[in-house]
Amino acid sequence: METQSENRAFGGTQGVYRHASSTTHCEMTFGLFLPEEAKDGPVPLLWYLSGLTCTHENAMTKAGAQAWCAEQGIAIVFPDTSPRGDGVANDDAYDLGQGAGFYVNATQDPWAKHFQMWDYIAEELPALLAETFNLDMSRQAITGHSMGGHGALTLAMRLPGRFRSVSAFAPICNPTASDWGRKQLGAYLGDDTAAWTAHDATLLMREVGFDGPVLTDTGTADQFYELLKPEALAAAVSDRRQEATLRLQKGYDHSYFFVSTFMEEHVAFHAEALYRE
Amino acid sequence: METQSENRAFGGTQGVYRHASSTTHCEMTFGLFLPEEAKDGPVPLLWYLSGLTCTHENAMTKAGAQAWCAEQGIAIVFPDTSPRGDGVANDDAYDLGQGAGFYVNATQDPWAKHFQMWDYIAEELPALLAETFNLDMSRQAITGHSMGGHGALTLAMRLPGRFRSVSAFAPICNPTASDWGRKQLGAYLGDDTAAWTAHDATLLMREVGFDGPVLTDTGTADQFYELLKPEALAAAVSDRRQEATLRLQKGYDHSYFFVSTFMEEHVAFHAEALYRE
Repeated sequence: METQSENRAFGGTQGVYRHASSTTHCEMTFGLFLPEEAKDGPVPLLWYLSGLTCTHENAMTKAGAQAWCAEQGIAIVFPDTSPRGDGVANDDAYDLGQGAGFYVNATQDPWAKHFQMWDYIAEELPALLAETFNLDMSRQAITGHSMGGHGALTLAMRLPGRFRSVSAFAPICNPTASDWGRKQLGAYLGDDTAAWTAHDATLLMREVGFDGPVLTDTGTADQFYELLKPEALAAAVSDRRQEATLRLQKGYDHSYFFVSTFMEEHVAFHAEALYRE
Repeated sequence: METQSENRAFGGTQGVYRHASSTTHCEMTFGLFLPEEAKDGPVPLLWYLSGLTCTHENAMTKAGAQAWCAEQGIAIVFPDTSPRGDGVANDDAYDLGQGAGFYVNATQDPWAKHFQMWDYIAEELPALLAETFNLDMSRQAITGHSMGGHGALTLAMRLPGRFRSVSAFAPICNPTASDWGRKQLGAYLGDDTAAWTAHDATLLMREVGFDGPVLTDTGTADQFYELLKPEALAAAVSDRRQEATLRLQKGYDHSYFFVSTFMEEHVAFHAEALYRE
């Protein structure tokens, strides 16, 4: 693993690291903020999964999360959203291929070789973080934005016991019924829609739910509102009687101005779960 | 004036606006965050002047200032750092020409026609803001980063009564004695160094000082420390007995991770001055 940069921030360190991934068969880059407390002992870890077109960098520089994570003594990791590089399959569209991994393990060509983002986030990266940094892996939580909100919700529900809490900013809630989902799940997983259901937060909420608190925020002026389908997740949450807070925020859109506005509350929400005995 | 974008943020609005400037003879773009309170009455205004290579956008998306300005009910404006466009003079170096206006009125060709950033910030933009937005122009404060810290300090000292407080992040403190300064002041103002002294915060501190509180932060690990010369400003402040807090922050560098770390304290510092009767 190679250190790309380390900047002092909010009393801790904002690092950027690069490593050869055995899961995605390419070099992967991630950002990790470690609060000051990591010098003295392991700290809890919050995952932030980003949305379409993003790298590890967008949220790291624009979401304002470090201020609140420093206050709470929590580390936050910013993984990339896909494999990358000249040898990695891609597509001209912004919503398929590099920058658009959708947090699944692709089974279809030309994607299968590199696009193994589920395993990368669920297995390889946590193992690397655990062995390299001063993290308490028994205290993890997960959040994300848009496609990353989809990733956060699906990972949280399908890895019971891994995350104590899950939240999302403007998540894609029901990708099997959305143009943000059908296209990508079809490309990565094939035409058999049975394989898609494990990657749909609404369907997973109906099937398995989450053993912990859930928080989502979506802006009422989100320009992609119809693609996100918060109403589908809301119905599933209600039907299941899932412990959850689903909020619609008046006038907010899909941007990082929206994400940063509510970041303090999301971090506080996770801190409460992470510091519970 | 044309609205480029408006995003709801922290209960207020982050706008980006573009207008034809009579001072710089080109189209100029600026960002303005208005807190929720601006709906009900005029709010105080904080200026944020950016550093080399920046546009209006860098601090607007990376400094995390809106969270704290919203909390304090203060507007913050993010001007561009120079005139821009195909017809505007430029230089291949990152530190001269577009993105590097240095907040002076150029007198030398090829710069003189467009590079009138002092007048743009001191006169044209405040007049435009005052007539367009719900701002209390009797309550203004100013801050900035690096070249923008130089701009903030020199504007504050040379416009007595305009700003109630001035702060700076890693400011260029003594440009007449630095490679960040001599090159640019020479190019824009000519070889007669007498014209440079009005644009040197250390010399102005010795000559006129500032009628109000001054706050600066500089990182001890700033990679441009030798170019900034905080020791020169510190000496001038001490000799003058200027009301000031000059801080060196251990381990911090020149990046926006540094700026965002101390933004809360800078905004609180200005709020105290802005809300004083």
